[in-house]
Amino acid sequence: MKVSELGEFGLIDLLAEMAYQAQDKEIPAWQQLIIGIGDDAAAWHSKSLTQLVTVDSFIQDVHFSLDITPWKELGWKALAINLSDIAAMGGVPQYAVISLALPNDTEVDSVTSLYQGMIELAQQFGVAIVGGDTSRAPQVVINITVLGSARSQSSPRSQYENILTRSGARAGDKIAVTGYLGAASAGWEMLTRKLQFDAEATAHLKQAFLHPYPRIAEGQLFLDHGVKAAIDISDGLASDLKHICQSSQLGARIDVDCVPIHPDVRANFGGRALELALSGGEDYELLFTGSAEIIDRIKMIAPCPITVIGEIVGKESKITLVDHQGNPFKLPRQGWEHFTKGQTS
Amino acid sequence: MKVSELGEFGLIDLLAEMAYQAQDKEIPAWQQLIIGIGDDAAAWHSKSLTQLVTVDSFIQDVHFSLDITPWKELGWKALAINLSDIAAMGGVPQYAVISLALPNDTEVDSVTSLYQGMIELAQQFGVAIVGGDTSRAPQVVINITVLGSARSQSSPRSQYENILTRSGARAGDKIAVTGYLGAASAGWEMLTRKLQFDAEATAHLKQAFLHPYPRIAEGQLFLDHGVKAAIDISDGLASDLKHICQSSQLGARIDVDCVPIHPDVRANFGGRALELALSGGEDYELLFTGSAEIIDRIKMIAPCPITVIGEIVGKESKITLVDHQGNPFKLPRQGWEHFTKGQTS
Repeated sequence: MKVSELGEFGLIDLLAEMAYQAQDKEIPAWQQLIIGIGDDAAAWHSKSLTQLVTVDSFIQDVHFSLDITPWKELGWKALAINLSDIAAMGGVPQYAVISLALPNDTEVDSVTSLYQGMIELAQQFGVAIVGGDTSRAPQVVINITVLGSARSQSSPRSQYENILTRSGARAGDKIAVTGYLGAASAGWEMLTRKLQFDAEATAHLKQAFLHPYPRIAEGQLFLDHGVKAAIDISDGLASDLKHICQSSQLGARIDVDCVPIHPDVRANFGGRALELALSGGEDYELLFTGSAEIIDRIKMIAPCPITVIGEIVGKESKITLVDHQGNPFKLPRQGWEHFTKGQTS
Repeated sequence: MKVSELGEFGLIDLLAEMAYQAQDKEIPAWQQLIIGIGDDAAAWHSKSLTQLVTVDSFIQDVHFSLDITPWKELGWKALAINLSDIAAMGGVPQYAVISLALPNDTEVDSVTSLYQGMIELAQQFGVAIVGGDTSRAPQVVINITVLGSARSQSSPRSQYENILTRSGARAGDKIAVTGYLGAASAGWEMLTRKLQFDAEATAHLKQAFLHPYPRIAEGQLFLDHGVKAAIDISDGLASDLKHICQSSQLGARIDVDCVPIHPDVRANFGGRALELALSGGEDYELLFTGSAEIIDRIKMIAPCPITVIGEIVGKESKITLVDHQGNPFKLPRQGWEHFTKGQTS
């Protein structure tokens, strides 16, 4: 059945029922909910003193292609990129509102798969889907807003005490990343150019591109251990580090030989592996800074690999890339930016 | 200059600067803000126990046409329809996050005009624009999320005590509306079909269509005086009343001769005036229910006309339209619904 046969209100009822079925009364977000889908606004009791909000658009043929992205994975990913922003604040995601714009001839089954992907991720992180809207459009546009809260601290010394910001880097801080880089953009290339790799590499790169896992637990752990600055890697390491440098009004030196490239990327993309890791984007790993002691402590207890890749230096917001010998390294491509000529997703 | 020449980050900087310039430290939303535009998420101190969130998409050639909507008015209206949802909850709007998707060849001046329209409205209602995202797209898509809070009450007797909901109607309640209906859709027809009316009617109908004014003060007043149920009229009186009836599991009888049609609509649209008022939509007036005593009290102090148009009756979620003599009235068109065949904006 097409969404044009079901109609807007039929579709809303169907999606509201899916969100309702997914509720879990053990989860604080659901316990505190007063009004969910089906009124002019959603409403909930707030127990936190610091609220967080983030939003991302996910547009067909700009951010994603249905040729390589199944609907369920699309739903997962569209929500994951928002949860990743909450992770980069060290926050706890709580509520999501979903705006869907769909062509009239979209299959209802596709929309429920999309929603199923979102619900699976939402359930893993205790997020309640509490509202949104639907409308028709020439192409699919998914716009998700996620509300969250900062973890409460008994007596924060400053208002920035309980969140990670882009402006929190200090000169001398080490720069570190979670997990491995480059696998998401390698997965995109593999799917788009129909490249053939061995089964394990194929599965891993596909997963990295279609199923990013937001580093929520890690963001909170960093905050607990004294990290002040973090960003999630969406546009590419080099591009996202620039945001930290600009906000903190400091420079950075990255040792490109330290950048953790996944073995599957290195094995299958040879000389381009480092470029994918530095500029590919969409890895949704966390990039963060802190003293050597703080990062050493985190390394010992983090649930994922933590790799130091450089340090915060100087007073200019300038990023220098060097190799292990200290020789300058030139990056062929700078990372994702919208509206820039010649760029295609 | 086109947005493609400025680039995504240049555009974000420009819009962030506009939002920053518009800040007003006298306004609670700005006072409580910790992180605005330019980080992974926005963050603020919350003093309210009940949070509200609403979202609406505004898509070119689906919800609006640039042929009849100047950019600044587009910005005003895109935000106004969201504030109207907060008004329909009796809430206080506080923060907005703006997602803009734009074609590459959009003029930067158009985008700043759009933002200017939003900022003007935001300033009138003490709303802080604290984040969003920008991306390219084949057509303009504006997605706005507004966060708000319910007014604090010293000791609410129930969790629904401090918000207006669609499910709050009671049998015997009178049904009332704010202002006049039909003018927005009359304005749309006038602009689309290039109809010629006298200068005063032209100005008024244009204003009604392009510049809806969210009934924030009225929503809060209704709540203060014991109203429990409200919705804003976006899809059309008949269609939106249906939401109240369904949520409240009650029916409604509307006396169509009581529906307040603006004189400019009546004078220029003759026999179609009532149809525009009942099904035209986009008036963003509030439709609410309450006892005769409550509505009489509100009538005396409301800053706008309040008109009783019917009452909540029966147990079925059925709406009956009658004229002054009690004869049934048949509505030619049911109100706006997306995905429905043959519908165009």
